[in-house]
Amino acid sequence: MSKVYSLPSHIKEDLKLVEEELLGIVASKKGKLAEASLATLKAGGKRLRPILVLLAGTINDYDLSKLMPAAVAVELIHTASLIHDDVLDGADTRRGFPTVNAAWDETIAISTGDYLFGMAFEILSKLNNPYFVKIMSEAVLALSVGELYQMKTYHSLNQTVDDYLFKIKNKTAFLFSVACLMGATLSGAKETEIEAMGKYGENLGMAFQIYDDVLDISGDKETLGKPIGIDLKDGIVTMPVFFALEEITTGECLQKVVENVNSTEEEIREAISIIESTSAIERTKDKAKKFIERALESIELITDAGTKRGLYSIGEFVIDRYH
Amino acid sequence: MSKVYSLPSHIKEDLKLVEEELLGIVASKKGKLAEASLATLKAGGKRLRPILVLLAGTINDYDLSKLMPAAVAVELIHTASLIHDDVLDGADTRRGFPTVNAAWDETIAISTGDYLFGMAFEILSKLNNPYFVKIMSEAVLALSVGELYQMKTYHSLNQTVDDYLFKIKNKTAFLFSVACLMGATLSGAKETEIEAMGKYGENLGMAFQIYDDVLDISGDKETLGKPIGIDLKDGIVTMPVFFALEEITTGECLQKVVENVNSTEEEIREAISIIESTSAIERTKDKAKKFIERALESIELITDAGTKRGLYSIGEFVIDRYH
Repeated sequence: MSKVYSLPSHIKEDLKLVEEELLGIVASKKGKLAEASLATLKAGGKRLRPILVLLAGTINDYDLSKLMPAAVAVELIHTASLIHDDVLDGADTRRGFPTVNAAWDETIAISTGDYLFGMAFEILSKLNNPYFVKIMSEAVLALSVGELYQMKTYHSLNQTVDDYLFKIKNKTAFLFSVACLMGATLSGAKETEIEAMGKYGENLGMAFQIYDDVLDISGDKETLGKPIGIDLKDGIVTMPVFFALEEITTGECLQKVVENVNSTEEEIREAISIIESTSAIERTKDKAKKFIERALESIELITDAGTKRGLYSIGEFVIDRYH
Repeated sequence: MSKVYSLPSHIKEDLKLVEEELLGIVASKKGKLAEASLATLKAGGKRLRPILVLLAGTINDYDLSKLMPAAVAVELIHTASLIHDDVLDGADTRRGFPTVNAAWDETIAISTGDYLFGMAFEILSKLNNPYFVKIMSEAVLALSVGELYQMKTYHSLNQTVDDYLFKIKNKTAFLFSVACLMGATLSGAKETEIEAMGKYGENLGMAFQIYDDVLDISGDKETLGKPIGIDLKDGIVTMPVFFALEEITTGECLQKVVENVNSTEEEIREAISIIESTSAIERTKDKAKKFIERALESIELITDAGTKRGLYSIGEFVIDRYH
């Protein structure tokens, strides 16, 4: 996936080192929890949060040795939350690989998530920066609030687009923002630049999650590493569904699929066709693009050309991926 | 329970403030996760970890405003781990109240645990002390390792007393030690005193857990707030079981109860009688007392008389409680 980024070449190199460190730290530990953690990390992932840490770290004085713990910690927090989410959602696969709850069991998955939360804060403590601990722990709070909101609203149409935005802000945007804030702070950026990066991360995260939800409807199984229509099957109401329901005169079939806990494959395919027959996907993409625009506006004051190009490139990746 | 402690009177007063702060912080938050957290905290608990923070904080300069975040954070970490443990163990009650997984459900319980882990580190970050974040996150790692070990060895006699000691060190002693280390550090104690307090906490925690396990066999349902024999029923092999099995010529019934996942109430009562017919309980109590002795030896160098009296008193409480 790295082909779509125009990242400074040293960042691309350093990302490999982050990957090595990430796997190395976990591989150096013994026991089943480390084993389950390693399997989850090895299943892949875009490592967007570490990329954001490094990229934000180019604003002023780039120092990989400082950025490394932040990049590793943020990915471990993300991984811990994925593992717990998979338990909560009863998910069997992620990125084409069995989840921890599927390959081991739910109890191992709960413990592995806790283990990774612990490891992340342990690594973060190396940076001697209480502000990082504060924002990272706020992100952990936000992740649990966002996931709970999702669970509470499964198969329910008694929610609004604003509720959906609240959820993805907590589940995704907050941690993106934390990655950017840490990177910028570690590079010794000015206060205004750090603040700008926080906004960039938040808006990028919103756009990323909205696009991720679009891919569940109009994506490609092989590229995604998971079947499409999973959110629909699980009753997770995403932006395209809200928009489609607004447009169609009789929302019955789509509505039924969302509310039904046992929709068949055929019903889900039909629901997807209904959504695709409306302008919901386009409208959703437009919303995502608005967030990207806001992200890019917020970094106008960043002067380093390489940083800016990289940040723009990530924005393009988010709206162009798999297309 | 406070009657059994000889704590300095200002500590007793300050513990009430810690309790207010603990409940107040959680009560100030909205939503189901805060609600489930508050219910768990209100169900009670001995608040031994906050007590240790305050008491260790009397070594040199006692300052409640500094000790408060450490005391609250350590209790929140403990509470988070209890909530996750109850999911892992499928426990329905704790301290005589329904667990979060019983009163709400497992998914709420997993999220509530994560929420409290996040909140604990957020509060801890106020102290601007990366060392605290390091040892607290190591404690979170230890808690998950200890709990996993317990899960792996349910209903198994293929384990030794050393395995059991490894488990309780991770599950209990580590966090006791962290509470003491933080309190001592915050009081501006000397390096040797801080180290001594770490050892005190660890050994006290070992003794506490061993006694807790004794109470599961020879305790009183009303005082405990839970039925006795639960560990036996759940197949958790504790020190009295190891010792009893060593003594009896035919361990069959006891062995069967431990290994059987569906022992009847009567079989459990019989197993308890078998254990009580041996010297296992006495030998276990002796082991616990050895840990208390080690705890008290390690604090010989502490000069403050009030601190020392308090620390001794906690040691006495651990071995005398409910007797």
